[in-house]
Amino acid sequence: MSTVPTLEKVSVNKSFEGELIKYKFKSVALGNLDTQFNLYLPPNATEHKKVPILIYLAGLTCTEDNGAQKGNFLKTASAEGIALLFPDTSPRGAGAPNETDSWDFGVGAGFYLNATKPEYSKNYNMLTHVTAELPQVIEAAGLPIDWSRQSIFGHSMGGHGALTIYLASTTKQFRSASAFAPISNPSKCPWGEKAFNGYLQGGVEEGKQRYDATELITKHSDPVHILIDYGTGDNFYKQGQLLPENFLTAARNAGYDEVQIRVRSHEGYDHSYYFISTFASDHIHFHANFLKA
Amino acid sequence: MSTVPTLEKVSVNKSFEGELIKYKFKSVALGNLDTQFNLYLPPNATEHKKVPILIYLAGLTCTEDNGAQKGNFLKTASAEGIALLFPDTSPRGAGAPNETDSWDFGVGAGFYLNATKPEYSKNYNMLTHVTAELPQVIEAAGLPIDWSRQSIFGHSMGGHGALTIYLASTTKQFRSASAFAPISNPSKCPWGEKAFNGYLQGGVEEGKQRYDATELITKHSDPVHILIDYGTGDNFYKQGQLLPENFLTAARNAGYDEVQIRVRSHEGYDHSYYFISTFASDHIHFHANFLKA
Repeated sequence: MSTVPTLEKVSVNKSFEGELIKYKFKSVALGNLDTQFNLYLPPNATEHKKVPILIYLAGLTCTEDNGAQKGNFLKTASAEGIALLFPDTSPRGAGAPNETDSWDFGVGAGFYLNATKPEYSKNYNMLTHVTAELPQVIEAAGLPIDWSRQSIFGHSMGGHGALTIYLASTTKQFRSASAFAPISNPSKCPWGEKAFNGYLQGGVEEGKQRYDATELITKHSDPVHILIDYGTGDNFYKQGQLLPENFLTAARNAGYDEVQIRVRSHEGYDHSYYFISTFASDHIHFHANFLKA
Repeated sequence: MSTVPTLEKVSVNKSFEGELIKYKFKSVALGNLDTQFNLYLPPNATEHKKVPILIYLAGLTCTEDNGAQKGNFLKTASAEGIALLFPDTSPRGAGAPNETDSWDFGVGAGFYLNATKPEYSKNYNMLTHVTAELPQVIEAAGLPIDWSRQSIFGHSMGGHGALTIYLASTTKQFRSASAFAPISNPSKCPWGEKAFNGYLQGGVEEGKQRYDATELITKHSDPVHILIDYGTGDNFYKQGQLLPENFLTAARNAGYDEVQIRVRSHEGYDHSYYFISTFASDHIHFHANFLKA
């Protein structure tokens, strides 16, 4: 039997009466590399009171800090009594080929999948890291999280991660998913093609089957709870990297109505955290409906 | 007559229905160096509707971005209909002696004063930059600000700046001042001593007369509106860099009561933006009382 890695506390910041704690540990899923994450515990989380958890997946180039610092999530999470988990976006220091050559592949760009190409498969397993390893190490550390109440959201690459992880989970691990400006149909955009061709032995075709939200919703039939926001002033939207309309069309064709899948377009908003922060509390409230049901 | 420098628009981000605009211009006050600032215009600011303005002065090592990105100020400013101005914290690229040797002097550490030592006095004039030059260039650009309605706040070194600028203004330029973890008695702490000895010909004694909030409140008699928050978990507070008790004692001795000067201590909060963001909306609401009176 393998032992669960021990968490090292890096820092603690009190915020909105709760605590934002940065932890570090040696990640097995990421090839025994050190990884860090932030965990926000609302004030009502105590030794005797477990709280629901909402996982935030950040976008390209980000770390575990961006969402915590700029997302404007903590105030509403504190008020709702929901913990927030902010993982990193990739392994750090793997030394894999080309991992630092560009900002949209490798370091800071793990795409929330498990790599199948041998040169990446030892370290680039963000899917396992987020969905299995982090819950395991946090649970083993005795932190007051009710793992039967999980939801997931994210931004851009992290929005892709949230939607695909939610839709692909056969165990219904997550109660709801939401996304800001997600890469919604990665097998049809440059970012997704580069990631799938880079990490996966089967390339775009393998990515399309396993890690494409638009493809996954087409094959889905169970009830879902999904909220997506994007801005019409988002340059990556204009360049066709996000394609939220493809996801929306596929969802409606699969029979999902506006109650189950809501996609909102916001005039003039861009891809930045200034956009995310504007709609941050909407997303926390959305998930609270299901996390606290 | 000198011409007013022209503003160059660097970027625009829509946020909370308003716009966060980054501008650049050649600053005369800072020795003809390029400087940048962020201006948040709430949605009710239009060509025909001027709005009040609240100036945020950031702390050591910061730029014009920290408060805008991490302060959690925009949501409440949008709701209250107040513009926010985020200046930089020093000139950039002056080439003055020792300006990049340490993080608490020179670049990123202008201390919101006008230097009198010849080697700094050409560039290190953040006092004039913040109180005179920025209002002038923004007004000349035709932006919808009502300059008869100004207030000022800040963090750490910027809290020092806000309090001293407010108290030293003989023209009552600002209606109210507030601060997060301000350097409250700089002539008695290492950061202040280093800055005063570095920038001022008269050293700490000159700083004590002109740029020390605790000294200034002792000599003050006009009505004031001041709010100060600090955390007991703040390492710089524990190290004696902030000394808010000195300011409070001087204020009470000068006859100011809790209505005019409120100093709040918050158990366990530290010096970070996680602390600032927690009490951000309190500060915006505090200033709104006076800006919208």
